[in-house]
Amino acid sequence: MWDLIYFLDLVGTFAFAVSGALSGIEKRYDVFGVLFVAFITAVGGGTTRDVLLGLTPVSWMNNIVYIYVIIAAVAFTFLTSGRIMKWRKTLFLFDSIGLGVFTIAGIRKTLEAGLSWEIAIMMGVISAVLGGILRDVFNNQEPLILQKEIYATACFAGALLLFIFYLAGVPLAVSIPVAILSIILIRILAVRYQWSLPVFGNSRKK
Amino acid sequence: MWDLIYFLDLVGTFAFAVSGALSGIEKRYDVFGVLFVAFITAVGGGTTRDVLLGLTPVSWMNNIVYIYVIIAAVAFTFLTSGRIMKWRKTLFLFDSIGLGVFTIAGIRKTLEAGLSWEIAIMMGVISAVLGGILRDVFNNQEPLILQKEIYATACFAGALLLFIFYLAGVPLAVSIPVAILSIILIRILAVRYQWSLPVFGNSRKK
Amino acid sequence: MWDLIYFLDLVGTFAFAVSGALSGIEKRYDVFGVLFVAFITAVGGGTTRDVLLGLTPVSWMNNIVYIYVIIAAVAFTFLTSGRIMKWRKTLFLFDSIGLGVFTIAGIRKTLEAGLSWEIAIMMGVISAVLGGILRDVFNNQEPLILQKEIYATACFAGALLLFIFYLAGVPLAVSIPVAILSIILIRILAVRYQWSLPVFGNSRKK
Repeated sequence: MWDLIYFLDLVGTFAFAVSGALSGIEKRYDVFGVLFVAFITAVGGGTTRDVLLGLTPVSWMNNIVYIYVIIAAVAFTFLTSGRIMKWRKTLFLFDSIGLGVFTIAGIRKTLEAGLSWEIAIMMGVISAVLGGILRDVFNNQEPLILQKEIYATACFAGALLLFIFYLAGVPLAVSIPVAILSIILIRILAVRYQWSLPVFGNSRKK
Repeated sequence: MWDLIYFLDLVGTFAFAVSGALSGIEKRYDVFGVLFVAFITAVGGGTTRDVLLGLTPVSWMNNIVYIYVIIAAVAFTFLTSGRIMKWRKTLFLFDSIGLGVFTIAGIRKTLEAGLSWEIAIMMGVISAVLGGILRDVFNNQEPLILQKEIYATACFAGALLLFIFYLAGVPLAVSIPVAILSIILIRILAVRYQWSLPVFGNSRKK
Repeated sequence: MWDLIYFLDLVGTFAFAVSGALSGIEKRYDVFGVLFVAFITAVGGGTTRDVLLGLTPVSWMNNIVYIYVIIAAVAFTFLTSGRIMKWRKTLFLFDSIGLGVFTIAGIRKTLEAGLSWEIAIMMGVISAVLGGILRDVFNNQEPLILQKEIYATACFAGALLLFIFYLAGVPLAVSIPVAILSIILIRILAVRYQWSLPVFGNSRKK
């Protein structure tokens, strides 16, 4: 199972890097700028998690494969530029896989560091969503993820599910795949049916 | 005394989280977005301090109370939404308390890590003000704290006072409360009488 | 040689801090705000490098000289305000020196931490350019460095040169000065002849 999860982690990294590269191209950044934003988007969440937990040197430093996956994703984005819409559905699926795998990997690392489930759930969500938030911050835009779409919520639901399975004594070989799949499914359904979280305050005055 | 300071630390965390939540609501973020900004505002300064000092896992990971205080602050902000102005003065007082307590706590942690007073004073100020700066960065706004108001300056004055007391051999049981109170007082007087630091450069051309 | 490199490191820190201070003055920040941006610009890259490598407390905490250089740079900027253009060429030279020295110092620290050359080259570039990127993020602007100019590319070329020298067995006493000088030279030539990296995507539609 771990081999499959590792592979899906790379798939998610690829999709996150493409999303970062696309936003950098839209901003008309140069090649270095596009690489930088792709990199921040792909590893920003996991790096912050590692730094907060004290797991340094951070994980991508010890496994060069992640850097090459990101470079490949940027090359792919440049090469398909203009025709990237053809890949839209595939990339969205990859992105959802990343969301699922990153959440569960974040929980695992936090628990292994000896911290509580509450913190682990938080760190799982942060691992998965912070990359996309930092992408927008470095692009000088309001973070899209903070505004709409069931995105962090999908991660949170999957994290909660994993916790419930843990309390119920379900073995990891069952609970981890189910939690990852549920995050992917919620994300896909949310986009399909345009679910969104409520916005408070001024919204009524509109 | 430490019990009181711990309690005031929670009071400050609450006020900082409300300030973050309010700014997130104004930006029309969804529930997750508002929680995220409240969290960054409340723990951003202390977390950065811990990371730079190498004190990981960072402090709120080992004491779940902070997370619950932040969630309570967000719930409070949503519930009083529209009538929050009634609480304006109380929240401003809480916020000033946070400023005072966070500064002194930052100094203490830095000295305990074996670093110099110069660095400790700097880290005290950073602990207190960085949360508010990060709030604005994640909201895609120019950081308010960098522009006007005696805010960081109040922290710096209190930090300096603590250092002078230390040189003069004043016991901590006296110097810490006086330093915290002086930060709170300077902050309150500064807002009351609209004190501000000078702005250089283009200002003359206006 | 190390004494000279240490001196050049301070020269670079000075220039980076001036660049940060100027941008803060332009934003009409107050004295604290200008100091904050100068500080982030000067130490942001190296601090992030240290945090990611787990080298905490981060380097400027153990050598107070850096803080004083930054304060001196801010004072210099205020005092020459209006007449800063007279210093433009000197500051540009200092800034290029900083770029060269920071890149090579970043590589050295990463290799000393036991990591691979690929990561070391990346961390060298990040050490040198992240301060300028964070300056723009905290100023709520699109990072200039991501958009144009041969800046990160100069660092990358020098880093690559150092790696090639390493493979060829050239002693450090030769390879380090040559790599630093080549970064400075590329940067100067790039600005002189307005070299820039290609921008992809929408650029064709203009």
